[in-house]
Amino acid sequence: MIVKKVYSIIQQKALDLIDKAGIVLTMEERGKIVVADFGLSNIYEEGIQILTLFETERIAGKLLILLPGQTEPEHWHPSVGNDPGKQEIIRALWGDLRFYVSGEDNMNAGFIPKGKEEFYSLRHEIIMSPGDQLIFDPGIKHWFQAGHEGALLYSFSTTVRDTMDRFTDPNIERITKIIED
Amino acid sequence: MIVKKVYSIIQQKALDLIDKAGIVLTMEERGKIVVADFGLSNIYEEGIQILTLFETERIAGKLLILLPGQTEPEHWHPSVGNDPGKQEIIRALWGDLRFYVSGEDNMNAGFIPKGKEEFYSLRHEIIMSPGDQLIFDPGIKHWFQAGHEGALLYSFSTTVRDTMDRFTDPNIERITKIIED
Repeated sequence: MIVKKVYSIIQQKALDLIDKAGIVLTMEERGKIVVADFGLSNIYEEGIQILTLFETERIAGKLLILLPGQTEPEHWHPSVGNDPGKQEIIRALWGDLRFYVSGEDNMNAGFIPKGKEEFYSLRHEIIMSPGDQLIFDPGIKHWFQAGHEGALLYSFSTTVRDTMDRFTDPNIERITKIIED
Repeated sequence: MIVKKVYSIIQQKALDLIDKAGIVLTMEERGKIVVADFGLSNIYEEGIQILTLFETERIAGKLLILLPGQTEPEHWHPSVGNDPGKQEIIRALWGDLRFYVSGEDNMNAGFIPKGKEEFYSLRHEIIMSPGDQLIFDPGIKHWFQAGHEGALLYSFSTTVRDTMDRFTDPNIERITKIIED
């Protein structure tokens, strides 16, 4: 959960990074950034800010904003039955960004959120510069993290209904509860 | 057809606009901008520059660059048999951009390329500011044009194989011939 006042502060921090990066949004878009804490209630360590640019039944585009040192928890997009599952293309846009995928442990720039070692199984680090892209087919686990500056990235994907992302951490809930105080 | 030397000049003009707009690409991407003249051999009037950012069997993203006053000819993305056809999301990124769709004739900022009236049937003008988006379902005709500054826009779409865009102008060929001199 997030206190309402903190939620607003984080939305503003995300907008500040967007402006620092020189990314132009419409006024409507500026007002609809969503803060996701994954139900973990430690938004500055684990969480992400999301602006959905477009979303149809077939295709979606999102701008993702990570505050400095913020981590998106390890997850994957499952295939279910005849549904092939979500295919996601990541494009680094601005700032310090590192992705973690399966492969040898070469972790250097990043860190595992404190006390969460068991929920971050992947330790193969990919440093992403602006314009760098990664394609995640359904079922492929990944997590990512911003460095000191924070980071902006695009997520383009096929749109999948009736399935949900899966997370390594069983404590995760996709709904962010906002409380008054 | 385009003379090889002119092709290179136009690629550079597209890069100049990308730099002016502050869009960061990788070095590899900077080297692979494609110039499309639609076989019409009047690239400065009708044509477009295309950088494919990503393309899988399910989803594609392109950066489109229009030089000042350049026009993308009227076209649509057909459905064929069981193939629902390409759904395209346009997002204006930088510069002077106008789209033409079906609706009442309110054309004001733009113009029909000289002598091509019969190949541009749509005259309903939409002025696009950075961040503005349009969604084109399969079969929906459209054309677009840059103003004095030129324009940059993103095209995100489902990827469709074995079908091709259709153009109002029957003289159009999708292959741009490059000749030595």
